[in-house]
Amino acid sequence: MTSAPRDPTRQPGLPHRFGKVSIIVLGADGRPLSDREVIVEQRAHAFSFGNIGFDFIPVANEETDPPRTAFGGASPERAARIADLWFDLFNMATLPFYWGPFEPQRGRPDTARLHRAAQWFVDHGCQVKGHPLVWHTLTADWLRAMPTDDIEATVRARIRREVADFADVVQTWDAINEAVIMPVFRNEQHRNAITRLAWERGRIATVRLAFEEARATNPGATLLLNDFDMSPAYECLIEGVLEAGIQVDALGLQSHMHQGYWGEEKTLAILERFSRYGLPIHMTETTLVSGDPMPPEIGDLNDYQVSSWPSTPAGEERQADEIVRHYRTLLSHPSVQAITYWGLSDDGAWLGAPSGLVRADGTQKPAYDALRGLVKGEWWLPPTRFRTDDAGRVEVRGFLGDYQLHCAGRTVSFPVATPGEAVTTVRLG
Amino acid sequence: MTSAPRDPTRQPGLPHRFGKVSIIVLGADGRPLSDREVIVEQRAHAFSFGNIGFDFIPVANEETDPPRTAFGGASPERAARIADLWFDLFNMATLPFYWGPFEPQRGRPDTARLHRAAQWFVDHGCQVKGHPLVWHTLTADWLRAMPTDDIEATVRARIRREVADFADVVQTWDAINEAVIMPVFRNEQHRNAITRLAWERGRIATVRLAFEEARATNPGATLLLNDFDMSPAYECLIEGVLEAGIQVDALGLQSHMHQGYWGEEKTLAILERFSRYGLPIHMTETTLVSGDPMPPEIGDLNDYQVSSWPSTPAGEERQADEIVRHYRTLLSHPSVQAITYWGLSDDGAWLGAPSGLVRADGTQKPAYDALRGLVKGEWWLPPTRFRTDDAGRVEVRGFLGDYQLHCAGRTVSFPVATPGEAVTTVRLG
Repeated sequence: MTSAPRDPTRQPGLPHRFGKVSIIVLGADGRPLSDREVIVEQRAHAFSFGNIGFDFIPVANEETDPPRTAFGGASPERAARIADLWFDLFNMATLPFYWGPFEPQRGRPDTARLHRAAQWFVDHGCQVKGHPLVWHTLTADWLRAMPTDDIEATVRARIRREVADFADVVQTWDAINEAVIMPVFRNEQHRNAITRLAWERGRIATVRLAFEEARATNPGATLLLNDFDMSPAYECLIEGVLEAGIQVDALGLQSHMHQGYWGEEKTLAILERFSRYGLPIHMTETTLVSGDPMPPEIGDLNDYQVSSWPSTPAGEERQADEIVRHYRTLLSHPSVQAITYWGLSDDGAWLGAPSGLVRADGTQKPAYDALRGLVKGEWWLPPTRFRTDDAGRVEVRGFLGDYQLHCAGRTVSFPVATPGEAVTTVRLG
Repeated sequence: MTSAPRDPTRQPGLPHRFGKVSIIVLGADGRPLSDREVIVEQRAHAFSFGNIGFDFIPVANEETDPPRTAFGGASPERAARIADLWFDLFNMATLPFYWGPFEPQRGRPDTARLHRAAQWFVDHGCQVKGHPLVWHTLTADWLRAMPTDDIEATVRARIRREVADFADVVQTWDAINEAVIMPVFRNEQHRNAITRLAWERGRIATVRLAFEEARATNPGATLLLNDFDMSPAYECLIEGVLEAGIQVDALGLQSHMHQGYWGEEKTLAILERFSRYGLPIHMTETTLVSGDPMPPEIGDLNDYQVSSWPSTPAGEERQADEIVRHYRTLLSHPSVQAITYWGLSDDGAWLGAPSGLVRADGTQKPAYDALRGLVKGEWWLPPTRFRTDDAGRVEVRGFLGDYQLHCAGRTVSFPVATPGEAVTTVRLG
């Protein structure tokens, strides 16, 4: 559990994110094609640039008047108009499995709609992540009348059901969300069933049941422990969970920065602390606002309710600057494998915040263009002309991911799989 | 891990702290002594009312010019004058084993002085507790040059040495102190060796080594996990430690209330949270000031350095009120088995705070008398006259502990061992 302090400014080129491949291009006859023009282009990132896909559930279901949701979301017409902007930047969609909204009446889960939404993202070439299998907030209120043993059995069954029903389209799950605060959560009129379960069984037992059931149902899934608590409390939970032998595939760190950008120093200190468990890190819930920040004294972000929270020109410039600095900082750390931004549009955004990269009217904020400048600019190889040398070789440096080479009407795929230098041979036809 | 919320006002008599014993008094011939006057008196509490004994190390060693310590303490003359006040209220002494001051030069530990101090308390009928075996603050600076493996070996050896050297006089140890913050502690110019150990090995491994070595050396000792962090972080640590199979004998909760009295509601909420692990609770470090409270924005209490922090008449009245409320609240909870107050005198008090129950000049504050009103008043049976009935029986109700019965020049001992009613027979001569 050691790691040297990192300073992203010392790695401006993100060497661990890029590879250099010497490609030897062979003709159909197996002989090198020397001095030939080829086009090389990147097709995918070996990094998950995620965003929530909540807004697109009605779009994927071709609904014009969708049911109201507890978690907001853009109107279907507006969502449809920004879908291309979504797919231009993101390759992983988080879909909502909040138990209360997902199964408001026991036995009538919203499986069909969610599955169509997940399939829609898969059809667009995206991974889909389910969020979350166990959480106290937005849980089903009908659980509350049960004895704790029945709650446990019902939670276990719900996990198995969702993971099985979505096994063809969802390979990544937040197995449990916010377990640090789970047993002592008080920000509700009644203590909910999940809080009671975690209080009586303990956090680790609750974490274990979530991972146990999800793992048993889909052994290949990537299962996350996810939390907003960046204090030593989350470290203590992680250490206990790992000590208990629970197999965690990645650590989820939330970063809803409604109260202001963390800055590089804090971000790197957090990554330093949470990377020492040797697990991949997913930044699961990333928010930067383009308006006034929420006052620092608000403890639970849900407590901040304002009638209007406008996006401002100055705020939009700041957000653009911050999103570039934040993504650069995160990618500078080798443990980070995914970043999910929390909402493309201000339309229906969580807390009414101007947290989108696109305004409510569908126009792009500077932050959208700034992030695109990284994801489809600095960190992307567009179709680029090369000429093979005498040995039929071209050298391509690019962000790790999937690539295509086109030559004389033929196309072959190859990966840039590892940092550093590699040699590969492709044969046309 | 369940417990009902508790309200001390509903248990004014602290029924779980008192027992009622029907004593049948027999003469030397084995026949009941009816209608006879007997005197019954309490001799000891079955509850640990503790205080630190730091001030009395020079007294026990008959030193007039003791070495200066890193943790303050009263002058020897002043300490000698308040020793009787100490023994009138307290039956458990915490002695300092802070590694840096205890062994400033490697291989020259302060064992002889500390052992004489411990023996002095034992000779006065007290238990002695050692504090702490592992802690980052005040650790030995000479450890810092070592590779981590050597630090670990040296820590293990130090634990075995102290627990063995004091096995005849110290049966209770804070095995490890403040492990929640240990790996991320930053309030020092250099990262110290214990912080490095906990960072590289993890908290649970560090907790394990502390308990493992202490347990192996003195299997009968009571070993505590102790922390100041009352947040869910400490719960997470405890859950991980228990899940890892480490046998913790009691949970230590610090309560340095330099920033103000917690109040009943917060205290009970904390006891509710930490009692659900089924372990005894020791309130290990209890402080209430008789002056202005420290400002709330101070994070690490050690950062508050003032030239003068006076005890005030209004503050002394408040402290007296608070100490009574606090001890009543703590004793109302069945899990609490010990309370250690942090310093009898203001003379040389930690942080220069007016936290003593006795002023620097040795006079008693109202808090001393108020606490005495509980410990040697409400919760104590002074020598009391009874008359046996026809069957030779007297009924004695008293705080759980050790008692004596005197009759016709003879004395017999008996315990009030359990709450509720019991019958015991004593034979004179």
